[in-house]
Amino acid sequence: MIDRLIKKIEETQAPIVVGLDPRLNLIPKHIKEEAYEIHGKTPKAAGEIFYRFNKEIIDTIYDLVPAIKPQVAMYEQYGPEGMEAYIKTIDYAKEKGLIVIGDIKRSDIASTAEAYSQGHIGRVEIEEESYTVFNQDAITLNPYLGVDSIEPYIQNCKTYDKGLFILVKTSNPNSGEFQDLDVGGEKLYERVGRSVNQWGAQLIGKKGYSQVGAVVGATHPEQAADLRKLMPRSYFLVPGYGAQGATAEDLKGYFNQDGLGAIINSSRGIIAAYRNEKYQKQFTEKEFALSSREAVIDMKKDLQRIR
Amino acid sequence: MIDRLIKKIEETQAPIVVGLDPRLNLIPKHIKEEAYEIHGKTPKAAGEIFYRFNKEIIDTIYDLVPAIKPQVAMYEQYGPEGMEAYIKTIDYAKEKGLIVIGDIKRSDIASTAEAYSQGHIGRVEIEEESYTVFNQDAITLNPYLGVDSIEPYIQNCKTYDKGLFILVKTSNPNSGEFQDLDVGGEKLYERVGRSVNQWGAQLIGKKGYSQVGAVVGATHPEQAADLRKLMPRSYFLVPGYGAQGATAEDLKGYFNQDGLGAIINSSRGIIAAYRNEKYQKQFTEKEFALSSREAVIDMKKDLQRIR
Repeated sequence: MIDRLIKKIEETQAPIVVGLDPRLNLIPKHIKEEAYEIHGKTPKAAGEIFYRFNKEIIDTIYDLVPAIKPQVAMYEQYGPEGMEAYIKTIDYAKEKGLIVIGDIKRSDIASTAEAYSQGHIGRVEIEEESYTVFNQDAITLNPYLGVDSIEPYIQNCKTYDKGLFILVKTSNPNSGEFQDLDVGGEKLYERVGRSVNQWGAQLIGKKGYSQVGAVVGATHPEQAADLRKLMPRSYFLVPGYGAQGATAEDLKGYFNQDGLGAIINSSRGIIAAYRNEKYQKQFTEKEFALSSREAVIDMKKDLQRIR
Repeated sequence: MIDRLIKKIEETQAPIVVGLDPRLNLIPKHIKEEAYEIHGKTPKAAGEIFYRFNKEIIDTIYDLVPAIKPQVAMYEQYGPEGMEAYIKTIDYAKEKGLIVIGDIKRSDIASTAEAYSQGHIGRVEIEEESYTVFNQDAITLNPYLGVDSIEPYIQNCKTYDKGLFILVKTSNPNSGEFQDLDVGGEKLYERVGRSVNQWGAQLIGKKGYSQVGAVVGATHPEQAADLRKLMPRSYFLVPGYGAQGATAEDLKGYFNQDGLGAIINSSRGIIAAYRNEKYQKQFTEKEFALSSREAVIDMKKDLQRIR
């Protein structure tokens, strides 16, 4: 998976992942109205709206970026019909050749972790039949429970060529509450980072990077530079660019000398670009996906300054 | 929620929560065969099988225990149809007067945490309509991201009288990898425990316990006794009894002097009791739910020795 991701990053020259985190209040009126007319103002309609919105964005940006990152919470909140839209989004993005990083941040142990692992990056068995359910290429995980909460996924990374991005240092204002605690001369997030590095050592691809990467928020440039040294073979999935305040300058230290090692996420900045004055001059609300395309091009240019 | 839980614990004299973590290989043949005949060996069948299995267990034990704890991973792995069974299980248990603790262990920030919170313990809005989706009474959460990943749930605890159980010290063999790290004279799990105590201080019920509780594994009796002192008003949700090796003796320190303060989970030990020789003498496989009932009665007796 990591080699495929790197290949696509090199082809597109865009270390960018588009966060598909739809919210009803960010979606153009015409899409919502059509769905409400057919399904009423129901969870079913919400799912349809999300999928149609995502599909149009995917259709317009799939040649520019290597990957998308749908945030499962946005879909899950609407129940089974939301989950249906999540799966349809994944499948459609893969059809268009995109790599899909499922932002699920799951955390559990033993047979429970195995169930998540089979459902999200493996196959579930029903007697002699087997199915892929959430067919993501990679997923995010929370490390608080320790290595036995991660192992069931490592196995599927090997079997099915999948990837993991494990939360190391998150982008939120209170991320330091536990992550920055001193644990014997280093911070907890550094200790977690060293573990992630170790967990991934058995899964190094042809380009020298591991299938086990790390989530490192764009809002912590100094810590990221230290982590970069501590875990040189881990790809960083970096949230927090744009809407959360980080700029391209902040991101220099997230990359290695080879220009690789990080993929920067932008969600609202791209999917809701049509609400940004800058793009409203060029495109109407119905052309929202074209605004998203412009926003991707602008982000790509912005990141090229620092690579 | 916490007052309702305590009231039911007192009524049943059973500080027990039954973990509804179904797995196909633990379910009696006759239930599976009927579903396969109608739906084939499909995710739809898996969901139907889980719901029918859960329903029969709920029907047989609802008068004995205060609560059930379905593990969402077991359902989620089968996709939307699994989630449908999860929701139906919750709704049916609530119909029978049981309190439902959703074991979801979610972790995320900002608007994403809000989406989980609305979907799982709040209401989601679709324009002027609003819906309850996963109508749990309480959920489990992972604290690694800090207080701003918890706040969106606290708000819904107030608005909708819901509860949280936050992972403090988990029951798995490698739980100590990060949770036991020394963070300036205390362990990380103690530091987390103190935070949980503080987060819950604004939500104390009539019996002196907070709507914000903690997950503390049954496999760590000494640490639990320390935590008990550190967070006297937090209810402990305790996994690891039975299948994971902890016995009633291990659990004494999880309770307060008032005999309250902990609710012990058993999953496999109860739902798969029909596979235990002890109950096989009394009941057939088709009477699996009666074996579960006996197992609950035995667990209740076992716990009464130490309370």
